[in-house]
Amino acid sequence: MAKRKSRTLEKAETAAVLSDSDRRTLQALHELAQKVVQSAAVGRSPYLDIPSRTLSNVRFNKTKRIIEMGSGTSRRELFNLSQAKAYMQTLLVASGAKRLIEQGKTTSLRGLYYMLKHTIKGTSEETFDDQSESDSMIEDVEVLLNALREELHLYAKTQGVMVGPITIIDNGDEIDCSRMGSGGYGIPSIVEPDRIQFRDCKAEFVLHVEKDTVWQRFNEDKFWLKHNCILTHGGGQPPRGVRRLLYRLHYELGLPIYCVLDNDPWGYYIYSVIKQGSINLAYESKRMAIPEVRFLGLRSSDFERCGLSPSVQIKLSEQDIKRAKQIANYPWFANKRAWQKEIELMLKNGFKLEVEALISKDISYVTEEYVPSRLAEGDFLD
Amino acid sequence: MAKRKSRTLEKAETAAVLSDSDRRTLQALHELAQKVVQSAAVGRSPYLDIPSRTLSNVRFNKTKRIIEMGSGTSRRELFNLSQAKAYMQTLLVASGAKRLIEQGKTTSLRGLYYMLKHTIKGTSEETFDDQSESDSMIEDVEVLLNALREELHLYAKTQGVMVGPITIIDNGDEIDCSRMGSGGYGIPSIVEPDRIQFRDCKAEFVLHVEKDTVWQRFNEDKFWLKHNCILTHGGGQPPRGVRRLLYRLHYELGLPIYCVLDNDPWGYYIYSVIKQGSINLAYESKRMAIPEVRFLGLRSSDFERCGLSPSVQIKLSEQDIKRAKQIANYPWFANKRAWQKEIELMLKNGFKLEVEALISKDISYVTEEYVPSRLAEGDFLD
Repeated sequence: MAKRKSRTLEKAETAAVLSDSDRRTLQALHELAQKVVQSAAVGRSPYLDIPSRTLSNVRFNKTKRIIEMGSGTSRRELFNLSQAKAYMQTLLVASGAKRLIEQGKTTSLRGLYYMLKHTIKGTSEETFDDQSESDSMIEDVEVLLNALREELHLYAKTQGVMVGPITIIDNGDEIDCSRMGSGGYGIPSIVEPDRIQFRDCKAEFVLHVEKDTVWQRFNEDKFWLKHNCILTHGGGQPPRGVRRLLYRLHYELGLPIYCVLDNDPWGYYIYSVIKQGSINLAYESKRMAIPEVRFLGLRSSDFERCGLSPSVQIKLSEQDIKRAKQIANYPWFANKRAWQKEIELMLKNGFKLEVEALISKDISYVTEEYVPSRLAEGDFLD
Repeated sequence: MAKRKSRTLEKAETAAVLSDSDRRTLQALHELAQKVVQSAAVGRSPYLDIPSRTLSNVRFNKTKRIIEMGSGTSRRELFNLSQAKAYMQTLLVASGAKRLIEQGKTTSLRGLYYMLKHTIKGTSEETFDDQSESDSMIEDVEVLLNALREELHLYAKTQGVMVGPITIIDNGDEIDCSRMGSGGYGIPSIVEPDRIQFRDCKAEFVLHVEKDTVWQRFNEDKFWLKHNCILTHGGGQPPRGVRRLLYRLHYELGLPIYCVLDNDPWGYYIYSVIKQGSINLAYESKRMAIPEVRFLGLRSSDFERCGLSPSVQIKLSEQDIKRAKQIANYPWFANKRAWQKEIELMLKNGFKLEVEALISKDISYVTEEYVPSRLAEGDFLD
């Protein structure tokens, strides 16, 4: 009882610090609930028209140059035996998000799963059998409300870091990213404007590298200081927080974004997701994809151009070859001659190259020669 | 040529900023090379006596309570057809470490592999066929010189974060870990005293949690502020930098370390490595293992004690059961009644519990009730 009371109190307290975005999301959640009440009032079966997250409802918008969802929706009804459970799950996730926002708290996808999982009263049925069920419902609620999951107060794994001449206000703390030593500022999962603000940005561009081990080389060589840029990595495929931060740095501060990724299908794919969005989560592209991002390297021509030793070649696997051909056929690469040549040359080479391969030239070749000359020549893929 | 010159210059510059640890390591590398010269001078076959990293040479030191290496060594000779390549590789890795230290630079294991990989002149033989070969030689050089790989200027992946009332000097930058917002300070891979110093520590203990998603809950609830502690995570099995930092916080600042890990064999194993060291890398225990660390939870008894719903149980797999029995037989757990009871009860329960399962009680149950009451009662496993 005491517990319940304290939560109510907290609710009252945190209600005062709702951000504009919180208020928008709560409003959308209220409207969702209102529709159920209205249906019930007139004796109609409550339903939800959920934008379809199927592949057939995903298209590449050539004007905006991002992957986006089409207008297809599918109806989910309460009084339909095959849809009733999914209907209940959708509203359960929505109610969980409401609780989080009102409490001013955030949690992980797994956290929400545990928060909402229980045996339905009077049955032996679980609300969710495993996390994949609640994850899928979270995506439905995102498209239903046109809200990023971060706006529903849900966070993902963090695995990116940044340094550079910019000050970040993170929940009121002022963090000077030019004084972060060898560790750097851990990029949080939720970087929405109500939590993270930018101050005193002196950087002229952002250099995003694929891996933390490469980032450490750039940081140790103080690349960001010499070239006046922000230096980030995303631990491979960058998590949502990193993509959203790059998006905000680009669109709010006008910083060009350059990516240093491996010369392999995985590097191409990472670039594709940063640039055009992801096919599976097409609805988030409009707040994450950065069509103007540029691919600085590594390139298939670098083996010859940089005079690398055959020792650093890694033979393409069957899987690599298959993936490279798929990527070459992506609509956003299909019409780009430079990308077609790039992928063709990799296939012709028969090998891939990691950024670390440049260490065979010199430990700081990548920071002192490779990237500076690519930048100076404006030599990158679009 | 210009390149070569600039490197020499740099060498001269950085020679001035060698740390004491760098000097010690360089001295050991010189002695290693001297022995080769001496053997050659007297016409004897050069050899190395390398402490054996085999399982049979690993033992649990009951007094020190850490896993350590025995005194077994194995000889590696140049003029022995089956050992010549390994001999060459060992010295190659040593020369690579020397180059890194003299240049004042660091690199990843993969970076060193690329740095040293080449086709041996006049043959079609590669110095290393793949990275596992150079990794293994790095471990040999570590035991040979009694130096951590960080002292050889090699870094690992980073994946831990910290916040709390302590200021860190990281390569000259002053970082106030109590003003790190939601992101936190990314714990670097190399946290040796010549790079990272502690200032103004007001914390009374360290709370180490397993996963970043749980860490985010503790940080959002400002647990570290309310309980005056340092809050860290290691992204699962903590990487070397995190373990070494915990070690330094414990032994240099006298802070007790408490771990909040899952109630499953993986959680037990993480605890075991932090506490006693890892079996595979036994030689590093003396500078990483913290026998005084304490296991705060989750516990097998928590299902009943905390009144959790059966919905949060995760059935033990065959593999879990096998691992649990192995861990119960570790010499450092075998004689501890509390640990034997803990593991027995998990096996009897037939299920495991994640820390996130506590969210089913309340989103902040873990930070507001579970951990505070365990701390207040002094209820933990040793």
